[in-house]
Amino acid sequence: MGGLVLTTFDWVPESPRGFVRDIRVRWALEEAGLPYRVESVPFGERSAAHLAHQPFGQVPWLTDGDLSLFESGAILLHLGERSAALMPTDPAGRGAALEWLFAALNSVEMASLPWALLKFSGDAEDTPAWKLLDDFLTIRLQRLEPVLAGRDWLAGPFSVADILMADVLRLVDRFDGLSAYPACRAYVARATARPAFAKAHADQMAHFAAAD
Amino acid sequence: MGGLVLTTFDWVPESPRGFVRDIRVRWALEEAGLPYRVESVPFGERSAAHLAHQPFGQVPWLTDGDLSLFESGAILLHLGERSAALMPTDPAGRGAALEWLFAALNSVEMASLPWALLKFSGDAEDTPAWKLLDDFLTIRLQRLEPVLAGRDWLAGPFSVADILMADVLRLVDRFDGLSAYPACRAYVARATARPAFAKAHADQMAHFAAAD
Repeated sequence: MGGLVLTTFDWVPESPRGFVRDIRVRWALEEAGLPYRVESVPFGERSAAHLAHQPFGQVPWLTDGDLSLFESGAILLHLGERSAALMPTDPAGRGAALEWLFAALNSVEMASLPWALLKFSGDAEDTPAWKLLDDFLTIRLQRLEPVLAGRDWLAGPFSVADILMADVLRLVDRFDGLSAYPACRAYVARATARPAFAKAHADQMAHFAAAD
Repeated sequence: MGGLVLTTFDWVPESPRGFVRDIRVRWALEEAGLPYRVESVPFGERSAAHLAHQPFGQVPWLTDGDLSLFESGAILLHLGERSAALMPTDPAGRGAALEWLFAALNSVEMASLPWALLKFSGDAEDTPAWKLLDDFLTIRLQRLEPVLAGRDWLAGPFSVADILMADVLRLVDRFDGLSAYPACRAYVARATARPAFAKAHADQMAHFAAAD
């Protein structure tokens, strides 16, 4: 059969290490205690075989027997359906995990990733375009802050929604974007203190370092 | 009890009409032939009751009996699980619908929505920030174009993934961002020619016009 196989790049430059999206899948697999192995595709070229699994030429994708899935959100939802450690099984808890999983990606990361790309590029200057992106992120974080001040995890128990939201927010934190949001920052600290995150992070760092 | 209730704003300005995200939910409900009713919340203020359903102060949300769900992606996935008209039921087809549903939101809309916000603001000037957003969208559309040139719908039969991807792309098309991507443009035309889209669009326009 083949079990669970996570595919990521064979190598990436120094700066994205620790933030490549395979970490979301590693983290979920570690939380659930599901066995898996890791395979690599070249960072330097996007083959037809790569595009057949991930049409945007990115990583990660997961194969589960005959099924191949791309998009970290889709993969985490698929794993969530296999393990109660990743998603509540009662309808209300499952609904909460589902809406917050999408909120991490489509309400927060839609604002934060372009913001971080621009921060990273060094072009976050005083232009209307920068101000628009910065304001877009601000209105999202202002709404998220009171939510995270009132609960440890988004859907009740820890879930895949927290893996995505914490991973989205820690990239903002890397560029010091959470200084005005103590509850968001405490949430990132709480999530990344989990042993499964530490293992996933160390494994990603080791994977890329091995190719240097 | 109570069946399906879709909540949207009571009124919005002229320019977003036809593009407010409740259209995604209306479209899915029309495709599935599921009965529903529409309720409104004030555009002018975000009450505590509004934030309890949608913590970012946006619309839409859907209630299904006791369950309340926000995020259009979460709502469409929930509806997809209720109707084979919205999501294939075999594992491979369901997986394809799932990954493309997330790709619409997290690979394409993450690039296209900030791009469209900037276009709409009139600040899409010749700055590094604008170029970065424009390039971000370009690399996504360049990868999507050959996919859509090779198939009518993303997951085989028409599915919720197409509702999201077509809705994401038609906002790009509104700002003439698809002129170099004929397959993307033909896909938008194909999707929006469906009777369920026409009904959803007309109903949204009538809903907001009634409040003028």
